[in-house]
Amino acid sequence: MRKYFEEFEPGSVRDSTGRTITETDIVLHAGQTGDFYPHHMDEEWCKQQPFKKRIAHGTLVFSVAVGMTAGVINEVSMTYGYDRLRFLQPVFIGDTLRVKVTVRERKEHKRPGYGLVTEGLEVFNQRSDLVMVCDHLLLVEKRVPGDAAH
Amino acid sequence: MRKYFEEFEPGSVRDSTGRTITETDIVLHAGQTGDFYPHHMDEEWCKQQPFKKRIAHGTLVFSVAVGMTAGVINEVSMTYGYDRLRFLQPVFIGDTLRVKVTVRERKEHKRPGYGLVTEGLEVFNQRSDLVMVCDHLLLVEKRVPGDAAH
Amino acid sequence: MRKYFEEFEPGSVRDSTGRTITETDIVLHAGQTGDFYPHHMDEEWCKQQPFKKRIAHGTLVFSVAVGMTAGVINEVSMTYGYDRLRFLQPVFIGDTLRVKVTVRERKEHKRPGYGLVTEGLEVFNQRSDLVMVCDHLLLVEKRVPGDAAH
Amino acid sequence: MRKYFEEFEPGSVRDSTGRTITETDIVLHAGQTGDFYPHHMDEEWCKQQPFKKRIAHGTLVFSVAVGMTAGVINEVSMTYGYDRLRFLQPVFIGDTLRVKVTVRERKEHKRPGYGLVTEGLEVFNQRSDLVMVCDHLLLVEKRVPGDAAH
Amino acid sequence: MRKYFEEFEPGSVRDSTGRTITETDIVLHAGQTGDFYPHHMDEEWCKQQPFKKRIAHGTLVFSVAVGMTAGVINEVSMTYGYDRLRFLQPVFIGDTLRVKVTVRERKEHKRPGYGLVTEGLEVFNQRSDLVMVCDHLLLVEKRVPGDAAH
Amino acid sequence: MRKYFEEFEPGSVRDSTGRTITETDIVLHAGQTGDFYPHHMDEEWCKQQPFKKRIAHGTLVFSVAVGMTAGVINEVSMTYGYDRLRFLQPVFIGDTLRVKVTVRERKEHKRPGYGLVTEGLEVFNQRSDLVMVCDHLLLVEKRVPGDAAH
Repeated sequence: MRKYFEEFEPGSVRDSTGRTITETDIVLHAGQTGDFYPHHMDEEWCKQQPFKKRIAHGTLVFSVAVGMTAGVINEVSMTYGYDRLRFLQPVFIGDTLRVKVTVRERKEHKRPGYGLVTEGLEVFNQRSDLVMVCDHLLLVEKRVPGDAAH
Repeated sequence: MRKYFEEFEPGSVRDSTGRTITETDIVLHAGQTGDFYPHHMDEEWCKQQPFKKRIAHGTLVFSVAVGMTAGVINEVSMTYGYDRLRFLQPVFIGDTLRVKVTVRERKEHKRPGYGLVTEGLEVFNQRSDLVMVCDHLLLVEKRVPGDAAH
Repeated sequence: MRKYFEEFEPGSVRDSTGRTITETDIVLHAGQTGDFYPHHMDEEWCKQQPFKKRIAHGTLVFSVAVGMTAGVINEVSMTYGYDRLRFLQPVFIGDTLRVKVTVRERKEHKRPGYGLVTEGLEVFNQRSDLVMVCDHLLLVEKRVPGDAAH
Repeated sequence: MRKYFEEFEPGSVRDSTGRTITETDIVLHAGQTGDFYPHHMDEEWCKQQPFKKRIAHGTLVFSVAVGMTAGVINEVSMTYGYDRLRFLQPVFIGDTLRVKVTVRERKEHKRPGYGLVTEGLEVFNQRSDLVMVCDHLLLVEKRVPGDAAH
Repeated sequence: MRKYFEEFEPGSVRDSTGRTITETDIVLHAGQTGDFYPHHMDEEWCKQQPFKKRIAHGTLVFSVAVGMTAGVINEVSMTYGYDRLRFLQPVFIGDTLRVKVTVRERKEHKRPGYGLVTEGLEVFNQRSDLVMVCDHLLLVEKRVPGDAAH
Repeated sequence: MRKYFEEFEPGSVRDSTGRTITETDIVLHAGQTGDFYPHHMDEEWCKQQPFKKRIAHGTLVFSVAVGMTAGVINEVSMTYGYDRLRFLQPVFIGDTLRVKVTVRERKEHKRPGYGLVTEGLEVFNQRSDLVMVCDHLLLVEKRVPGDAAH
């Protein structure tokens, strides 16, 4: 698929399918990152904390959310980075996440023939609580190399 | 361990141990996120790209880097979010990463008794190339609740 | 172990031990295959479907069932293929599977010194529901190379 | 996505992206199925066999191939089963697989409002060797319930 | 970190953080070791045994317990072996383990410049039942090479 | 299978099949235990050590070795513990292990109707180096409850 810079319409929205965060996801993520903090791994300790239950790693929620938005490949786009990544609510075992992606803006970029697109990611749980947000910055080829951003 | 807001000295630095990114890490991360893009999973396709070899997912590099900085728990600190996450160089199978953490600044925060600490994460490979950076924002309890940030 | 073509008695039966299908198995299988369909991964969506709960991938049930029949190696036998693989009932998290293997028939095969054995695999859950069937075709060395199948 | 029975055109073809089979895939599949036969796990033993190197489990090749064809969900289709699954060439660590899916035929089915679609799966390695084939049987809703198959 | 032979004080104690043993841990350990015995994998069979529920592999409890004691690296110490490893109570899914490490004794060793330290590992569950014990033998560099053990 | 105390013949030997230790095994074991020490995970650091290459965790070698001896279940035997576990040579990625099990002795045990059997486990690599040994203690039912050990 080829979706060029000019085709990203600010305000346009797409939604992911849902995915339930499981105990397995947390155990595997601890294993991948080496983060075995009791917040994620010690049910007894968690019972005594304000949040009461084991919670997913922030990097797990982020990785899964980004993965959920990776459907058909856009061959003329690449990730530039992420801004304002915030964890707003804890994610528990059994929570089901969905991601809403909104095109926020198109901007010029110093790399010739490319522009910068910002997509806002919003991650919701099954109670429609907003649990995570971030801005995804994409470097996208222009259909017409000399085009201005607006 | 309890390291209070006032004890984060701007400019102070700590270094992680090293960790080699393996093919296993990439396969497991694809499995955790559902991102099976050919950049990570198709050696034949990668041979025809400018980077020539399979590359690690951005979310893998980020997750591992954050995990590498998770040593002894600071009981009076929690993650507030991340800013300016950028992937500067591709990470290949066999690259060995190290993370340098520098305290950047202390700021006031609206939550009473807490301040905001910014740590800069810089991830280097075995050739000392800077491959990833981000700012880690920490909400840290003040030793003396009424203390100002400076 | 060497069990030759002539030693497969049509009608003879062997039973596997049991194995409980866990949430972990499903998450790992999604990770191995890249199939993150909501049937397997989205508990909320499944609640609204006729089957109500997440179900195991067909390829997971098949892979586990075949694995459960792999005990002592028969050095003179190799898998030729599988026929009539059917999924008759959904397999849920917590179901315990057992496999019954019945020798169905012996047939001639064009490869000199070998014959074709068909074993029927029947997979049952803990309620004795038949959840999967298939025919496993084995190419097996003859003890006496010139022997006819019957 | 809704693709009805009548919309499956015999002869139409789609191709998957590629995926490299790794040592990790084999180790994980042994772990999922419990099949630790030396064909997959013992490099020294394999050196003395005709195929010389560790080979992927048949159930791994099948599971990955089926997963590679699972893109956008067709909400009006479900898997009925698989026929004539054959492993034609061994798959080694480092081989890159692609799957070609061809609609073979549409047939009536006893379930009212549904018809049976057969898709042929052909799995090729990076040398264009055909390594696996099977027929995938799909039970697909008819757009016009009373429609005949042809 | 460098903690020399002379610095191991018999009677001194350190405690690990806690870790909950999950179904995931057991499934992953079966997958790593190839031990799919029904004690660990077949919930129906376990219901009919005296212990009623699936139990963790002994090697899993041992591996996790040893891992829980691996905090900051002591650069002048290496594992020599383990003695008197005993499994005293079954560990069930959902049990939370903690490890208490007690320096038992310092002994001379034939390797010049090194001595042998014995640490006792005691693993407790959330009900303070002692579930596993072993002696961990460490070969540790002497600060003063010619020093005697006492 | 039922093999009673009296049937363990001191001096009798059985051999396992072989298994190659892979990078995947080490990464998965680090993930299961939380032991990310550079000896196992940092290829660059290892290059500067006497052993030059990443080495398998002791608990991995032990777990895999014990798993390799777990074939057909003996219903009248249970593990009592392990003694004299020693790691004699490092195990590297790509080494292929085999286990030799020798019945060492039969002893009385205080539990009525049971006796204690000691099996010696010897783990060899593909160069026939002995890399690990331990004694496996089994509590085994007596065929004739009142029988003495000798």
